[in-house]
Amino acid sequence: MNLALSTTLHTSFDDAVERTRQALSKQGFGVLTEIDVKATLKAKIDEDMEDYLILGACNPPLAHRAVGVNRQIGLLLPCNVVVRRDPSAEDAVIIDAMNPDLMVKVAEEPALQDVADEATVRLQAAINSLAAGDRES
Amino acid sequence: MNLALSTTLHTSFDDAVERTRQALSKQGFGVLTEIDVKATLKAKIDEDMEDYLILGACNPPLAHRAVGVNRQIGLLLPCNVVVRRDPSAEDAVIIDAMNPDLMVKVAEEPALQDVADEATVRLQAAINSLAAGDRES
Repeated sequence: MNLALSTTLHTSFDDAVERTRQALSKQGFGVLTEIDVKATLKAKIDEDMEDYLILGACNPPLAHRAVGVNRQIGLLLPCNVVVRRDPSAEDAVIIDAMNPDLMVKVAEEPALQDVADEATVRLQAAINSLAAGDRES
Repeated sequence: MNLALSTTLHTSFDDAVERTRQALSKQGFGVLTEIDVKATLKAKIDEDMEDYLILGACNPPLAHRAVGVNRQIGLLLPCNVVVRRDPSAEDAVIIDAMNPDLMVKVAEEPALQDVADEATVRLQAAINSLAAGDRES
């Protein structure tokens, strides 16, 4: 199983973040949290790394269904979307969205499959729209 | 595999949140994000549920080691700690910390085992200290 649904954009980091937020919003995912991992590691332990942001994306109806099936599923919410500069390519930014099937796998809860399937359709649509926009630009 | 390292406190919800933050801090985990799931679901889709908070806990040296092994591991960071009212018991608050072994299992990356083991020791110590404090109070 892949950890992520992914694509790569050829643009600035800030533009990749903005496009990712818009693509998620169109699929009903609000961004509830944002962690600047690069800045956090620099500030806390003086380590350097490439631009690396974790967006916590939440589709409220899907989240509600998931906690209705398993009250511990908040351990895997919100759905993380990582926006990170490709360390090996100039002007390439990788977008990784958590594969919702991970929820089903780790919770060993088949009743979560319907929720995961709908989340996958929506996240894959967001990833596809980002990839299409990148090809056109 | 258990999804969570867990305990139950018999106190108010706010006190349970405060104690959880302190126990995590003593083990080197800062809380980077906080999602009030109850308030979010009420505001967005007018659904009611018990008090339910997701804390995003991060131990910077461990996070740095994890992304050093697998750049996609941010999909499972920070380490979520759920503080939620027990729907079936008055004055009981459940604390669930994500079992770090999940990272190793879903990433299928044995090199993450050392990081997960240290995270488990620290999170279990935090959970144990919460349980001990509850017995004394």
